Amino acid sequence: LLQAAVKLGSVRAVLEANAARRKPKIAKGTRDFLPAQMTIRRHAFRVIERCFARHGAVAIDTPVFELRETLMGKYGEDSKLIYDLADQGGEILSLRYDLTVPFARYVALNGLGNIKRYHVARVYRRDQPQAARGRFREFFQCDFDIAGAYPPMVPDAEVLKVLVEILSELDIGAFRIKLNHRRILDAMMRVCGVPSNKFRAICSAIDKLDKEPWAAVRTEMVDQKGLAPEAADRIQQFVQEAGEPRALLAKLSAADYPLAADPEAAAALAEMGTLFDLLGSMGNALDSIRFDLSLARGLDYYTGLIYEAVLVPTPGSDANENVGSIAAGGRYDGLVGMFSGKDVPAVGVSIGIERVFAILERRLTAAAKTGGATIRETQTQVLVASPGKGMQLDRIQLAAELWGADIAAEFGYKANPNFKDSLQYADDEGIPFLVILGESEKQEGIVRLKNMQRIAELGSGDALLSKLAA
Amino acid sequence: LLQAAVKLGSVRAVLEANAARRKPKIAKGTRDFLPAQMTIRRHAFRVIERCFARHGAVAIDTPVFELRETLMGKYGEDSKLIYDLADQGGEILSLRYDLTVPFARYVALNGLGNIKRYHVARVYRRDQPQAARGRFREFFQCDFDIAGAYPPMVPDAEVLKVLVEILSELDIGAFRIKLNHRRILDAMMRVCGVPSNKFRAICSAIDKLDKEPWAAVRTEMVDQKGLAPEAADRIQQFVQEAGEPRALLAKLSAADYPLAADPEAAAALAEMGTLFDLLGSMGNALDSIRFDLSLARGLDYYTGLIYEAVLVPTPGSDANENVGSIAAGGRYDGLVGMFSGKDVPAVGVSIGIERVFAILERRLTAAAKTGGATIRETQTQVLVASPGKGMQLDRIQLAAELWGADIAAEFGYKANPNFKDSLQYADDEGIPFLVILGESEKQEGIVRLKNMQRIAELGSGDALLSKLAA
Repeated sequence: LLQAAVKLGSVRAVLEANAARRKPKIAKGTRDFLPAQMTIRRHAFRVIERCFARHGAVAIDTPVFELRETLMGKYGEDSKLIYDLADQGGEILSLRYDLTVPFARYVALNGLGNIKRYHVARVYRRDQPQAARGRFREFFQCDFDIAGAYPPMVPDAEVLKVLVEILSELDIGAFRIKLNHRRILDAMMRVCGVPSNKFRAICSAIDKLDKEPWAAVRTEMVDQKGLAPEAADRIQQFVQEAGEPRALLAKLSAADYPLAADPEAAAALAEMGTLFDLLGSMGNALDSIRFDLSLARGLDYYTGLIYEAVLVPTPGSDANENVGSIAAGGRYDGLVGMFSGKDVPAVGVSIGIERVFAILERRLTAAAKTGGATIRETQTQVLVASPGKGMQLDRIQLAAELWGADIAAEFGYKANPNFKDSLQYADDEGIPFLVILGESEKQEGIVRLKNMQRIAELGSGDALLSKLAA
Repeated sequence: LLQAAVKLGSVRAVLEANAARRKPKIAKGTRDFLPAQMTIRRHAFRVIERCFARHGAVAIDTPVFELRETLMGKYGEDSKLIYDLADQGGEILSLRYDLTVPFARYVALNGLGNIKRYHVARVYRRDQPQAARGRFREFFQCDFDIAGAYPPMVPDAEVLKVLVEILSELDIGAFRIKLNHRRILDAMMRVCGVPSNKFRAICSAIDKLDKEPWAAVRTEMVDQKGLAPEAADRIQQFVQEAGEPRALLAKLSAADYPLAADPEAAAALAEMGTLFDLLGSMGNALDSIRFDLSLARGLDYYTGLIYEAVLVPTPGSDANENVGSIAAGGRYDGLVGMFSGKDVPAVGVSIGIERVFAILERRLTAAAKTGGATIRETQTQVLVASPGKGMQLDRIQLAAELWGADIAAEFGYKANPNFKDSLQYADDEGIPFLVILGESEKQEGIVRLKNMQRIAELGSGDALLSKLAA
C-alpha cells in the first residue's frame, strides 16, 4: 500500500510538472497589450505624434537591433543592461537600448547636416522590472530631436515647448520640468574645487539627490569618490539652488555670486537667459519649468542644457502614480561625431510613455466603472442582427454593403444568433447601432435601425473616455 | 627616400582602416525608414488597419521576443532561421518568427475562447536578404485572425473578404488569390497511393510548383522522397487542376471524378461549396479567387483551407514587382492547443507589407517626378517668414499661437532667414501656406498669407500622391 502511494505521488508530480511546462508563458518584464490597452495606447500616441508633427518633425524608423559596436561606449555602466543577440555566425548584434544612439548613427550614416525627427519605438533593457510602476524590459520611448547647427537655444526652446504641450494634452496631472546646464554644473564643480578628473563621478553622485538625502550623497562623494569634505560642503550650497527660472538666473548671475568669476559659467548663464526669453515668447511654456542646480542626468553624452519632467504628487493620488521621471533629455553635440568624425550638434527629449499608459489605464478604468461607459476595443459602428432564422446570407450581404461604404460592421458568426444575445453583445461592446433585418423587412426591402447609444451625464473626468468611445 | 615612402604608405593604410572602422553601419538585411518612406508606410498601414477595424477586429500587441520553447516545433526546417538572444543569465529567448505563433500563445495564456484580432508588427528571419525585392531580415507583417468555434467557413470567408478589400484598396495592380484545402490535398494523396507517412514530404514538394517545373518536382518526389513513379504521375493529373472556383468544384465533385470515392474529400469539397456561397454574398469577393490544387503551403500547422495571394505581372510592369506571394494564410485548428492543451480553432491571413512598400515607393517616386509634386515628409501647414531682420521672437510668438490652435507650423531657426530661402524651403517641402510677418505688418497688427499650393493636372495615377500630399 505504501509503495502504491509513493508511486501515485510520483505520477502526480510528473503530471503536475508536465502541466506547468505546458502553461504558456511570456518573457519576464514584457507584456501583451490587450485590446482595451491598445485603445489607450493609440490615444496617447495620437496626442504625442500629432504634437511632433505640429512642430514640423518628420518621422523615421530604425531596426530593433544594431551592430553591437554601435552601442558600445555610449551608456557608461548601464551598458551591462544591453540585450545581446546570440552569435549564430555573421554579425554581432544587440537590441537597441534607447532611440538616441540609433538616431545619431542614422544622421551619420545618411550624411545629414540637419534634421528634425520623431521616433516612437520600443527599446530594451535587462533591468529589474516593476510592472505596477510601468517599468518593463521592453518599453516604448517617444523621441523628438533636432540636429543641426542653429543659433543658441532656439531648437532647445522648441523641444521644451513640445514637452510642455504633450504633458499638458495627455492630461495625466500636474507636472514640473527641472532644468540645468552641463556647463554650469562643470563651473560649479570647478568653483567648489572638484578636480576635473572627478567631474563625471561627482556628477553621477549629484544625480542621486532626487532619491537619496544629502548626507548619503555626501558620503558617496567623500568616502567612495575621494572628494575633499570642504568641496562637498561647498557643493551642498549650490545644489540647494532651485526655483523660478528668471529669478534664479538673476541670483546666479549676480556679481557677488560665487559663479561670477568663472567665464564658462557666465557664457552658460547667458544661454539660459536666451532660452528663457525664447520660452517666454511661446505662450505659457515657462510656467511649469524650474531651474534646478541639483539636476545632473547620468548619461555621458550630454554637453549643454539638460532636463527631466516629473509628475507632481497630489494629495489624493495613487502611490503608484508617483512614478518619478516620465521624460528627460538634453543637448548632445558630440554623439553624431562619434560615428562620422563630423560633429552635428543635437538636442532632444525622450518620453517614457509606458508610465503614462499605466496612469491612463488606471484612471480610465475607474472612470468607466463610475460612469457606466465602455473603453471601446473595436471600432464597429453597426451590428447586423436578425430576429428570425435562416437569415445569415442576408446579414452577410448587408454587412458587405456597409463595408463597401467604409462603415465598420459585424454580422454575427452563428447561423441563427439569439436576438437578445445580439442586443447584449452590442451593449457590452459599445456598438452604437443595430441594424435589424427580419423576414418582413426583407420582403419590404427595408431594414430597421436601432440607436444603442446611451447618453450618460459625463463629468469632466470622463471627457477623454467619451472621446475614446467615439 | 624609399623607406619614407613605405612609412607614408603604412600611415595611409592605418588612416584608411581607421576611417573604414568609423564608417557607421547598419545590420545586414535591415533598413532605416527615411521620412518619405515613412509617409508611404503610414499610408499603407492606414488602409490596412482601417479594413481590419471595419470588420470589427480588435488590435493587440505582443513582445518582440518570446521564450524559445514557445517557438520550437512550430516551423519545421525553417526553425534554423530563428534569431536567438544571447544567454546572459535568466530566460532563453528568441525573436518572433511570425505573428501567428505569438497569437496562439496569447490566446492560450489569456484563456480566450474566441477573438477576432489584428496585429501589425515586425518579425525576424535569418534569411538571405534581397532588398530590391523587398526581402529583409526584419520586416512587417499585417495579420488578421479569427479564433473561436463557429459554423464552417464563415470566419474563413470574412478573412478572404478582408484580403480582397485590402489588396484592392492598396491599388498595387491586379492580384489573384489561390485557394486549396489541406483535406482535399490529403485525399488526393490517398487516392494517388501516397503512403500517409509521406504526406508531409510530398506536400512540401508540391509547394515548389510555383517556382519549379513539374519535372523537377517529380524528381524530388521519386528520387529524393522515394515515391512510386505511378503515384507521382497520378499527382500530376491532379495538380494541373486550377480555375474558376465554382466550375472546378463542380468538376472535382462529379461522381466520375477520382475523388468521389473518398469520404474526407466529399466533406472538404462540401465546405468549399459553403465557402463559395458565403463569398458570393460578399460583393465581388469571388472574382479574384482561383481554386488551385497545386497550392500546398509549407507550414505544418494548417488543417483546412489554405490560400496565397500573388500579383499578376502586367506587360509593362517592373521585373522587381513580380515579387511572388504578398499574402498567405489558412486555417490552423490545432495551434492554440499546443500551448493550452485545449484546442481553439482559428483562421487568418498575413500580409507581407514590405513588398507592398517597395512597389508603392517605386510608383510614387516615379509619379512625383512626372507630376512635379512632392511626397510630403512633414505635415507642416504654415511657414512663418519675415522679410526684415530682428523678427525671430515675433515669428516664434506667431508660431506658438498657431500650435495652440493645432496648426502645424515652422518658424525657421536662423535669427534672420533670407526671405528667398524661406520661399524655396516652403516650395521644396510642399508647405501650402507662408505667413509673412514684416515690420509694417507688425505695427498694423496683421500678417500676410501666401498660398504656395501648385494646382497641377493630376492623372489618375497621381490621385494617391495628392492624397499623400494632403
